[in-house]
Amino acid sequence: MRQKRKGRPTNTSRRERISPLTVARLSLYLRHLEELAAQGQSMVSSRQLGDALGLTDVQVRKDLASFGQFGRPGVGYEVNGLVRRLREIFGTERVWDVAVVGVGSIGRALLAFKGLVKKGFHVAAAFDKDPRKIGKRVSGVLVRPMTELAVTVRRKGIRLAVLAVPASAAQEAAEDLCQAGIKGILNFSPVRLNLPDHVAVVPVDLAAKLQQLNYFIGPPKSRQG
Amino acid sequence: MRQKRKGRPTNTSRRERISPLTVARLSLYLRHLEELAAQGQSMVSSRQLGDALGLTDVQVRKDLASFGQFGRPGVGYEVNGLVRRLREIFGTERVWDVAVVGVGSIGRALLAFKGLVKKGFHVAAAFDKDPRKIGKRVSGVLVRPMTELAVTVRRKGIRLAVLAVPASAAQEAAEDLCQAGIKGILNFSPVRLNLPDHVAVVPVDLAAKLQQLNYFIGPPKSRQG
Repeated sequence: MRQKRKGRPTNTSRRERISPLTVARLSLYLRHLEELAAQGQSMVSSRQLGDALGLTDVQVRKDLASFGQFGRPGVGYEVNGLVRRLREIFGTERVWDVAVVGVGSIGRALLAFKGLVKKGFHVAAAFDKDPRKIGKRVSGVLVRPMTELAVTVRRKGIRLAVLAVPASAAQEAAEDLCQAGIKGILNFSPVRLNLPDHVAVVPVDLAAKLQQLNYFIGPPKSRQG
Repeated sequence: MRQKRKGRPTNTSRRERISPLTVARLSLYLRHLEELAAQGQSMVSSRQLGDALGLTDVQVRKDLASFGQFGRPGVGYEVNGLVRRLREIFGTERVWDVAVVGVGSIGRALLAFKGLVKKGFHVAAAFDKDPRKIGKRVSGVLVRPMTELAVTVRRKGIRLAVLAVPASAAQEAAEDLCQAGIKGILNFSPVRLNLPDHVAVVPVDLAAKLQQLNYFIGPPKSRQG
């Protein structure tokens, strides 16, 4: 449990060779390559990829080489081929069902986010404790009671969940998700979850992101002198 | 422009001694210390902080020592004092006004997110291009046309913006934000922004987070062989 960094999932046993930072860069490469493919570009060099993403060409080649030799020296990478290979690496050559737990403002935003399907994810079920929300449809998805979590997750074979409940309810809801068989949780609740090692957790803390941004901007000019 | 990592803001000139990963850990410490303070705990050791956050006590002491000597050997850190000092470091001992650009699903979630004020941020203005949204109030905040961005940002002295427009509109909206005098952008749009170095950008890519989670879970059992 030691030496973990923020954003590092709990479960890295299967794939611990590759650092979370490398995996984060791979998703940047994939996003940019998808844009290039949409524009009809067929080849790209490590230099062009690096320039577009603020990385060195050495870093790009090193990251991609961890997963096999895709590029050809002096020629570069075939865009569509690399998109396919990166989707295989992420397992998103197919679409995965996702459960959203907590239909508040964040949960609603995720339910309304149609762009997810192109990235390999489909919100297949939503859950909330609030009787006023249960039974309603939000962006076409039925809101179910938490008591139906386990049976729904099993029936639909869902592996991924988005946890978007208030901090006070997060640990309990996360334990319910584990018991229901969820393997990975994207955690929007501003608490650190205490879960078994076989469940991966990736945190998203929006207030922390704003704090970090504010730090990098520094104090206002009037206070700098 | 070279050697930048995902999540590293463009503008680090003022504060480049401290790495973005350290800053991310500082916001974890602050969040946990705020919880301890709310529970009435007055002292905490580097070991306790580390255990709660999955870090070593050495890492905790090193991170906090970058900003001065707060702890006392064998005694630990005074919780309220360290909360105050970390808020000073982030500049969130006061509340900063934030502009939200793009009142879609993500923008609405941010506008509804009341917990931000406790973290030092207040959504003071919202902007959209869509005439059907302009003039309405969302979570109490008036939605203004983009043409009022510059004058509103200047009048309210806003430094921070959340960019939550579709990918195709992101670069243009980000340039408008720079021209209006915004210093830092939390970017939810799934594109890399090309902006002057004096504007800090922190990206939040939810699809990428799900991809990373899916990577760490690995292939389904049936495909593992």
